[in-house]
Amino acid sequence: MEDLSFVPDLPKGPLDVYRNTASFNWKRLKLALEGDIDSLKLKYKIWRTLEKDPLFAHSAVTLPVEEQKRITQLQLKKINEYKFIPKEMFNASYSNAHYVRIFFFQTRTIMTINEAVQSLNPSVSVKMAIGIYLFSNALLSLGTERHLKFYEATIKTREILASFALTEVAHGSDARLMRTTATYDPSTREFVIHTPDFEAAKCWVGNLGRTCTHTLLFAQLITPDGTNHGLHGFMVPIRNPDTLETYPGLIVGDMGEKIGVNGIDNGFIMFNQYRIPRENLLNRTADVTEDGTYESSFSEPSRILGAALENLSAGRIGIMQESCHSLSSAVSIAVRYAASRTQFGDRQKETPLIEYELHQWRLFGHVAAAVVFRLYIESFTKTYLEIAEKSNAGHRVDNLSETVSEIHAMVSCSKPLLTWSVLRAAQQCREACGGHGYLKCSNLGDIRSNHEPTVTYEGDNNVLSQQAGNWLLRQYEAARGGALPDTPLGTLAFLTDDASLHRTFACTSTEQLKNPDFILSTYKWLLTWMLKYTHEKNESELAKGLTKVQARNKSQVYRWRTLTKVYAEYLTLMISLGSIDRKEPGLKPVLMKLYCLYGLSVLDENLVELYQGGFAKGGDCARLVRDAILELCADVKGEVVSVVDALAPTDFVLNSVLGRSDGKLYQNLQKSFFSQPGVFERARWWREVVPASKL
Amino acid sequence: MEDLSFVPDLPKGPLDVYRNTASFNWKRLKLALEGDIDSLKLKYKIWRTLEKDPLFAHSAVTLPVEEQKRITQLQLKKINEYKFIPKEMFNASYSNAHYVRIFFFQTRTIMTINEAVQSLNPSVSVKMAIGIYLFSNALLSLGTERHLKFYEATIKTREILASFALTEVAHGSDARLMRTTATYDPSTREFVIHTPDFEAAKCWVGNLGRTCTHTLLFAQLITPDGTNHGLHGFMVPIRNPDTLETYPGLIVGDMGEKIGVNGIDNGFIMFNQYRIPRENLLNRTADVTEDGTYESSFSEPSRILGAALENLSAGRIGIMQESCHSLSSAVSIAVRYAASRTQFGDRQKETPLIEYELHQWRLFGHVAAAVVFRLYIESFTKTYLEIAEKSNAGHRVDNLSETVSEIHAMVSCSKPLLTWSVLRAAQQCREACGGHGYLKCSNLGDIRSNHEPTVTYEGDNNVLSQQAGNWLLRQYEAARGGALPDTPLGTLAFLTDDASLHRTFACTSTEQLKNPDFILSTYKWLLTWMLKYTHEKNESELAKGLTKVQARNKSQVYRWRTLTKVYAEYLTLMISLGSIDRKEPGLKPVLMKLYCLYGLSVLDENLVELYQGGFAKGGDCARLVRDAILELCADVKGEVVSVVDALAPTDFVLNSVLGRSDGKLYQNLQKSFFSQPGVFERARWWREVVPASKL
Repeated sequence: MEDLSFVPDLPKGPLDVYRNTASFNWKRLKLALEGDIDSLKLKYKIWRTLEKDPLFAHSAVTLPVEEQKRITQLQLKKINEYKFIPKEMFNASYSNAHYVRIFFFQTRTIMTINEAVQSLNPSVSVKMAIGIYLFSNALLSLGTERHLKFYEATIKTREILASFALTEVAHGSDARLMRTTATYDPSTREFVIHTPDFEAAKCWVGNLGRTCTHTLLFAQLITPDGTNHGLHGFMVPIRNPDTLETYPGLIVGDMGEKIGVNGIDNGFIMFNQYRIPRENLLNRTADVTEDGTYESSFSEPSRILGAALENLSAGRIGIMQESCHSLSSAVSIAVRYAASRTQFGDRQKETPLIEYELHQWRLFGHVAAAVVFRLYIESFTKTYLEIAEKSNAGHRVDNLSETVSEIHAMVSCSKPLLTWSVLRAAQQCREACGGHGYLKCSNLGDIRSNHEPTVTYEGDNNVLSQQAGNWLLRQYEAARGGALPDTPLGTLAFLTDDASLHRTFACTSTEQLKNPDFILSTYKWLLTWMLKYTHEKNESELAKGLTKVQARNKSQVYRWRTLTKVYAEYLTLMISLGSIDRKEPGLKPVLMKLYCLYGLSVLDENLVELYQGGFAKGGDCARLVRDAILELCADVKGEVVSVVDALAPTDFVLNSVLGRSDGKLYQNLQKSFFSQPGVFERARWWREVVPASKL
Repeated sequence: MEDLSFVPDLPKGPLDVYRNTASFNWKRLKLALEGDIDSLKLKYKIWRTLEKDPLFAHSAVTLPVEEQKRITQLQLKKINEYKFIPKEMFNASYSNAHYVRIFFFQTRTIMTINEAVQSLNPSVSVKMAIGIYLFSNALLSLGTERHLKFYEATIKTREILASFALTEVAHGSDARLMRTTATYDPSTREFVIHTPDFEAAKCWVGNLGRTCTHTLLFAQLITPDGTNHGLHGFMVPIRNPDTLETYPGLIVGDMGEKIGVNGIDNGFIMFNQYRIPRENLLNRTADVTEDGTYESSFSEPSRILGAALENLSAGRIGIMQESCHSLSSAVSIAVRYAASRTQFGDRQKETPLIEYELHQWRLFGHVAAAVVFRLYIESFTKTYLEIAEKSNAGHRVDNLSETVSEIHAMVSCSKPLLTWSVLRAAQQCREACGGHGYLKCSNLGDIRSNHEPTVTYEGDNNVLSQQAGNWLLRQYEAARGGALPDTPLGTLAFLTDDASLHRTFACTSTEQLKNPDFILSTYKWLLTWMLKYTHEKNESELAKGLTKVQARNKSQVYRWRTLTKVYAEYLTLMISLGSIDRKEPGLKPVLMKLYCLYGLSVLDENLVELYQGGFAKGGDCARLVRDAILELCADVKGEVVSVVDALAPTDFVLNSVLGRSDGKLYQNLQKSFFSQPGVFERARWWREVVPASKL
């Protein structure tokens, strides 16, 4: 057994009642959810270090947005100084570079640092991810030897803080139609960057508003003959690193206040015939010669763009990891509150909220999701990194392009599932803490607001899941035609099982449902039926003479959209089950309960389709699924406080008056109220509001 | 036809494409949704007045919370000075006072002012509603002649700004167990108010943190013989009105920052043997004589509390009205954005978001809800005010107590339905505006955050709907026993129709579904089945030996909770249909489309129950309901921009860069970005973040 003494013990207190009933050791579960001890150690090291540093102290009030930006930038600088990353990780060269190296810099260590920092201040982790890690990754993937100096200046000397300029004011999801141009001028051997009008201003560029020194710009490359070669990446200097003055020829500004993550300076920029050296074109896949001839290893410009954007999509795995942490924090607060808050009952013995079936049902499914998602993402990340590593090292990966496609489909539907689930859960957690949850000091508001943009950025959830749908339907059509689906990771292997649609619901007791076999096999039915249902609709629209795009647009609601959600749910169930199998025996009973609770809860959301498609008839299926969920909630009650102990970060990081591990809810609230500066003072503006006659 | 020229015409612009296709005049629809022209005129008058007043100018950034409180208080003062309320409305006396006068001061005029102010600054309307209107109402209902001076000081001289102190730190929903005491001391003829510990501190008291002069306190009344007579209302002075200094013996403070409505100073208070005169007991229903004898017209203390709390619940109708306005604003922004934002398609002719079926489906159901909710609430309020007025004037109201019970049930389940629907809709609207929706200047974040607490306050939605469930089951049990249900307003009249559960789904085309008869009759089936299903579960739990409370707690999930939601949906459908019948012919086609879209959209959420209960079998029901929804979305597309023109307040009030009526999305965005103070300046803190070696 690993020594877990670096994880501090929990204070004794009112929560012990519900901790003593757990069937497992919470530190062991914590380790199991983390996946490996080094990551867990690193997180605790980071948290301990930052807790001692006054720069990372929490503010009781939301600071003015400009101040949030200042502190976030200072925190970024300080985190660099702490050198949490081993130095040897910084060595990079282009010698082993390879097209599919889509996640080069996202090693486990970097991911762990990102997660640890994100649970403390999401703005810092975004700033760091965009400005340093994803940028370096993109630079290595898109650039060549001549760009190594930028990499060095970002990673080693930290002179560069970067940003990504892709989105324009009038174009987000449709990258193809971006209008910023980079026209090559052979007379000076420069590219001339130009923004035709405000609608083509780059915007939403994180770090651009106040701080970045360079941006990785995507612009339409135009050669002297007037040909547009499509979007390409360029290294564009924005600010003098020594003075943070912007260079002439640029109109750069901050976009102003947002709903959350205000520590990030999202900016907009317009280029006025702004010149950069020819060498600043990131030329791995295409280049322009000194005299202005375009040379590319791709025949299709859209493929180059695809390669470039796939790179950017690396952030989606990071988003899912962060989402897991936001969810962990939210449910930890709400469950600890539910265990310490009583309401109704006798005066001598009021009932803790956690005892109410309705309250259990509102929360425990989200706790189960937090566990299943972490198992899923931890396992998926490992697979992902293994493939990327092999490929980067130049080893042969079987079916590489099929693997990349399947991974892309998995990510494209999982990111929507996870981010939306967490958003809903965070809201439920807030409501389950009642009015006290609405206090800033509960931290539930900030967790929610900071999480919210994840459903939009790095691919709007609705648009992104359509991409997964394309892949799914292609595989389905192949399987119908008798071919094997291209599913090297096996996520659609069951498609060859013709029998699956002939199954019907035949259970007679809830026990039969609380079982991974029932859940997974029902999901296979559901997924097969949704593929068929979506495919039929799509075909019927095509038969009416619609174009492919039109037919797809007419097949989204209730079909494509549901299909991709069901596929994502299936992925979480399939992959997390494999992960549970590998965990130590003492943890399996609780993990299996949570697994079934999650599985049946998501199945509950698809009951209509089970009835519509003929899997279920009569009242039994709905009733048994739902009864089983309630039984599992009751079953989980004695475990759930220890489960959130395993999910939760330290109290300092959780930063919630309602969710502290000591469970001393009211003492913590009192301290929070009484320690606000000037809390008992008269309003300084009293003269302005009392009747004038009385002054 | 009424002259509607006081409603300003809309500017010509890009939205005209979608305005020209409307089948109706948007100003006529606006009037129809408002219900009467005087209210509409008053709203425009208020909006025009406040738009000219710099005190009501919008800030581009969230102000520090203390500053928000200051401005809100100044705005309240200013609104009083504008004297929007006719003076004669202020006359009140106790001569005609009557126990059921639960909504005395909520006249249509006050409601309209509240709505107009709320859409501009929700904190001001809360402050005004709590501090003046609901307080006066409660005072008149609970007090007697001797309290008229407080009323005068609140309404006429405005010396008093009040608050309601009921909730305690450790008790919210369960008012019965509040622990603050008011012990009568015959030696000085005073009540001694005392807070035993922090858990019994009153909290969440709006206006208490910084500004109120008095609070209407609910405390356990204890007579000298030591008997506790339960919660009673007391007028308690908090601050000197001339200086806003709190009085000795009080620990009063502000609770600090919240997720939204930070203009409201929610406070907490602890009383340390704080003395108030005997006469400050609000003694309509019970009194304590000078020598300390308790005298009550009620035999049960719990009935007195019930009467007092029913009074407080008056605010729930206000919340529903405000929710309708928040929803109107949110969908207006999102629909105008969808009509002006294009994405994908050819470069010369990109596709407006509003053309995508998925986008229509995401938004139009919420637009339909906005219309149906307004028709419902407008109509319901009218009924409510008529009954209250009659009763207050001393006229006989048939079945008064049954009517009050039915109204209470209607309110208790409608407030959850509306507030939750609006919360979901506001979030969907934000997401449908993509990243730009995440900007503060979209106003979607503030609309959402300010709306959010409505699901918790004035009765937590989950707790409140249980009360409606109690009433519903009582009526169902009566009807089963052969008695007539007590439903003077007719909302459960259909219960006597035994045949309803024998009906099954037998439609073969979507046309048959797009019909109020289909929708309402299906809802009657659904409601009857949910009553039966919930009743059976409740009985089976009782048969196991559980107490009534325990049985109820075990019947919440999937039963009681769904039942009350379905009942609320049925109410909105039944009552809004009656309202549509009374509207002018030119509006009926569009209203009927929206009605059916709303009706089928909520039915969609209950498909599982339709299958489970045997109403539907096979694939047709789900498929036809959903196909009909998509057809209605397509049908509504040409109307929807004009519908939101009818729903939206003026641009000043809407305060959204994305939702301005001119549809000049990008020009408005540019103006918003460029006009931020210091937007193009270098960060003032640049020296702190550049490498030290460079300074």
